[in-house]
Amino acid sequence: MPVTLADNNYGKSQVRLVKVIRQGDRHDLKDLTVDMQLRGDFEAAHTAGDNSRVLPTDTMKNTVYALAARHPIDQIEEFGKVLAARLLNKNPQVSQAGVSIREHVWTRIIAGGVPHRHAFAAAGGEKRTALVTAAGDRVTVESGIEDLVVLKTTRSAFTGFVHDEFTTLPETHDRIFCTSIRASWVYAHPDVAFGLCWRGVRQVLLDTFADHDSQSVQHTLYAMGEAVLEVHEDVVEIRLSLPNRHHLLVNLSPFGIANPNEIFVPTEEPYGLIEAVLRK
Amino acid sequence: MPVTLADNNYGKSQVRLVKVIRQGDRHDLKDLTVDMQLRGDFEAAHTAGDNSRVLPTDTMKNTVYALAARHPIDQIEEFGKVLAARLLNKNPQVSQAGVSIREHVWTRIIAGGVPHRHAFAAAGGEKRTALVTAAGDRVTVESGIEDLVVLKTTRSAFTGFVHDEFTTLPETHDRIFCTSIRASWVYAHPDVAFGLCWRGVRQVLLDTFADHDSQSVQHTLYAMGEAVLEVHEDVVEIRLSLPNRHHLLVNLSPFGIANPNEIFVPTEEPYGLIEAVLRK
Amino acid sequence: MPVTLADNNYGKSQVRLVKVIRQGDRHDLKDLTVDMQLRGDFEAAHTAGDNSRVLPTDTMKNTVYALAARHPIDQIEEFGKVLAARLLNKNPQVSQAGVSIREHVWTRIIAGGVPHRHAFAAAGGEKRTALVTAAGDRVTVESGIEDLVVLKTTRSAFTGFVHDEFTTLPETHDRIFCTSIRASWVYAHPDVAFGLCWRGVRQVLLDTFADHDSQSVQHTLYAMGEAVLEVHEDVVEIRLSLPNRHHLLVNLSPFGIANPNEIFVPTEEPYGLIEAVLRK
Amino acid sequence: MPVTLADNNYGKSQVRLVKVIRQGDRHDLKDLTVDMQLRGDFEAAHTAGDNSRVLPTDTMKNTVYALAARHPIDQIEEFGKVLAARLLNKNPQVSQAGVSIREHVWTRIIAGGVPHRHAFAAAGGEKRTALVTAAGDRVTVESGIEDLVVLKTTRSAFTGFVHDEFTTLPETHDRIFCTSIRASWVYAHPDVAFGLCWRGVRQVLLDTFADHDSQSVQHTLYAMGEAVLEVHEDVVEIRLSLPNRHHLLVNLSPFGIANPNEIFVPTEEPYGLIEAVLRK
Repeated sequence: MPVTLADNNYGKSQVRLVKVIRQGDRHDLKDLTVDMQLRGDFEAAHTAGDNSRVLPTDTMKNTVYALAARHPIDQIEEFGKVLAARLLNKNPQVSQAGVSIREHVWTRIIAGGVPHRHAFAAAGGEKRTALVTAAGDRVTVESGIEDLVVLKTTRSAFTGFVHDEFTTLPETHDRIFCTSIRASWVYAHPDVAFGLCWRGVRQVLLDTFADHDSQSVQHTLYAMGEAVLEVHEDVVEIRLSLPNRHHLLVNLSPFGIANPNEIFVPTEEPYGLIEAVLRK
Repeated sequence: MPVTLADNNYGKSQVRLVKVIRQGDRHDLKDLTVDMQLRGDFEAAHTAGDNSRVLPTDTMKNTVYALAARHPIDQIEEFGKVLAARLLNKNPQVSQAGVSIREHVWTRIIAGGVPHRHAFAAAGGEKRTALVTAAGDRVTVESGIEDLVVLKTTRSAFTGFVHDEFTTLPETHDRIFCTSIRASWVYAHPDVAFGLCWRGVRQVLLDTFADHDSQSVQHTLYAMGEAVLEVHEDVVEIRLSLPNRHHLLVNLSPFGIANPNEIFVPTEEPYGLIEAVLRK
Repeated sequence: MPVTLADNNYGKSQVRLVKVIRQGDRHDLKDLTVDMQLRGDFEAAHTAGDNSRVLPTDTMKNTVYALAARHPIDQIEEFGKVLAARLLNKNPQVSQAGVSIREHVWTRIIAGGVPHRHAFAAAGGEKRTALVTAAGDRVTVESGIEDLVVLKTTRSAFTGFVHDEFTTLPETHDRIFCTSIRASWVYAHPDVAFGLCWRGVRQVLLDTFADHDSQSVQHTLYAMGEAVLEVHEDVVEIRLSLPNRHHLLVNLSPFGIANPNEIFVPTEEPYGLIEAVLRK
Repeated sequence: MPVTLADNNYGKSQVRLVKVIRQGDRHDLKDLTVDMQLRGDFEAAHTAGDNSRVLPTDTMKNTVYALAARHPIDQIEEFGKVLAARLLNKNPQVSQAGVSIREHVWTRIIAGGVPHRHAFAAAGGEKRTALVTAAGDRVTVESGIEDLVVLKTTRSAFTGFVHDEFTTLPETHDRIFCTSIRASWVYAHPDVAFGLCWRGVRQVLLDTFADHDSQSVQHTLYAMGEAVLEVHEDVVEIRLSLPNRHHLLVNLSPFGIANPNEIFVPTEEPYGLIEAVLRK
């Protein structure tokens, strides 16, 4: 039976980039990781070893640095649009260019009570993300958050669930709820005040997580997504992925010690994983 | 504008399981990591905090251990089918159950020149994988390999590619080709001699990687997939994902030392990433 | 020739603990990882399989949870002293008990403009650490910081170094200086206002890093340590370990683009590693 | 009070190196990670920003590649001696040079039933290690193993241990014993058939682990070290570090299922850690 190339893509991943922006002796810092992915007419490379249509991934890497020197990169969505347009428009064999960017956030060191002009500390694991996809005349932009780890010590219950022969989990009206928020949302159009909008969505996610009377991870996930869609007009869809980082109550009764929801073991594995897409 | 739940799924990830099988004083060992994912009628959990249709992920975890005690787990595809069937059939609200299993391979320690009866060494990073999806009466089975790291020191070229203003990569007729094979393949039907087939596909992938005159990663990827589809009748589709783990030739000329493809720096990032799906 | 047991120790590592402290509806959260290590008369366990003097590491783990329920844990040095004393005093065969604690910092979510009463976000990678060692009547306390990643975009030079036949590094008067601070310091006595002191040392380290005119990593390391010893009377010794996370200037000249210290590649490996101990 | 520089060292870490050795169309492959560390007269660099005695870590990196081109690297202990001698002898300000090398093992792909001439697969996580320290005329050589993960399904007990108020661990006569062997040993002199000796020590460690009737991790650790010292004349000291990777028996009794030492959960944390040094 003949073999066909049903799908293919290629690109460069983990291109690391730091840009220093100098305004007199006050410096700004942007720290990005860029992944790029092309789709298009690359059949001959696969089937015949013909590279005449292959833009090397090394050149894609160079393109990131060259364009980062020529263009501002402070809004990663805008920089993603510049990169995707370049990859698509200079290469007729490319039908779709995807650019995924993660921003590693730095904050100014507070020295002598004031933010320092050129010294920074890494803000931690949380990343701002963007995914720009360009195909033909169409550009779609998604923004997102990764690794925003949050925890609430109360107002989280889990009761009334299915019981079967393998059930051992007790119902609980008060548990720790800890998750690492991964969210991405789609804009109705590619021209948005991205930074402002990103900070707004992030705050809505945090506010809702903190104040929701949670009946389950699903329940809070939905509330978080719904709040974002209600508050942010330009956002038409949001995807949320919430691992449930279980905190197990330690049984201290063998030692004659009470444990009124006080001493927990945080566990890495296994973990629940709850995902959903909400749409207007 | 009303908000709708466009998609959702949930489950338990990273359920770790070791099973010891005793045949007299000769023991066998299986070491698995299981992920499960359900789709179905879970809207009320999201929108109303109603858990009456939610099978807790903790119960899914218990189910893995209970079924691993009752059933053989030596073919992970078969164990995946047992698990997926249970999750689907005992829960009318579930429309699709996905079970993903990674097997961590152990080999017997050779002591006194012979394989030991009950002592083992971890075989390394390579994992055998399976993905079973059950929906209604339909069961699909994929087998796969992850983290099989291979390297060839010659018979790998990269020439004749696109040149543009950002090109600096020299053409090369002889380079190191190193990748971490990730492959998964779909069977025409769910009843296959899975272990035999898995070892056969693995060998075809290795043979082809080793002996192919590579013009690019794409070229070798295609040859590897094609060879699998040609040799294995039961395999109807294969997906390959090959990161290009670049090995850079070190420039020793400042020290008056020649470097005839001998001294390299292996790099972690950035890396090329080449992916394709081949189908009969 | 006879074999002797020249040294030995054992203990439990990576004991994870979260404690919730409730003051009405305002909750506090402590998140610790505890390692314990015992030295003492354990020769018979090694040479004769006699466990009669072995306190199981499982019991050490239980001890962490039981004591965390009975005692405050907000100053990790104080909790380390309680744990070390217990391990030493209840076990006559133990000659030295070491307790190492890492604290994972959480900050309150700001919701509606105010710090939330029971919702938190992980503050990132930085850890506060403590090492308490108890032997006989002697208790020593070290405090420390791990994974505090900082970067300055200027006021860092590296010139006038040794040149030999393998030198290719150009001298530079202006480079990025990025490091992940690992520091630990010894107190003159075990009764200190640990939290206050820790925040003070941390601020001196940051201030000095930010404002020093660095001639090398060594130069700034010494300045940081010296400043701590000068400002903090109770600190008699400080150890600093500073990896040099190199940021390489990208060569854009092939593309006719200037790069006036603007576009850099941050690299993970290799890295310089500079370490020193300063003492009063 | 005056501040003194009590100790200091610096160097380059994680220098990655692959060397291809060609014998006709049969190739060999060596894959190393090298760390170097210098001690000596570097006080002026710290206190005065005077780099005139500082050999840049970038030059150390170059030195690795240059010497790897000029010298064989197949015995990492020998290559470590070459590197340490160069760093010590060319730099009068250096009083001690330490070189630590980890070798990542590759095995030939078996294609068509025979080992391939130029295609390899990564052998997994296990590393061969060497530490060479040169100071004045004295050179010491240690060899070692890291990340050799082993497991035995029986002949491991843990009974007769101390009981106190926090004991919950049951005594057991039959448990899984899983560890990741980290061993390093010191040779009586720096001229040994290193490869032969390394394979010999490794086999003794595996044989003893497999066949020992273990009363505790300590008991087996000691037996492993003792066997090495007894069999290998040139080895005068061995250090072993054995994490106890606990495998917990799953309680299936709530489901009416027996679990006769068959179904286990392997856990990552917490873990016991047992360490000792044995000497002739």
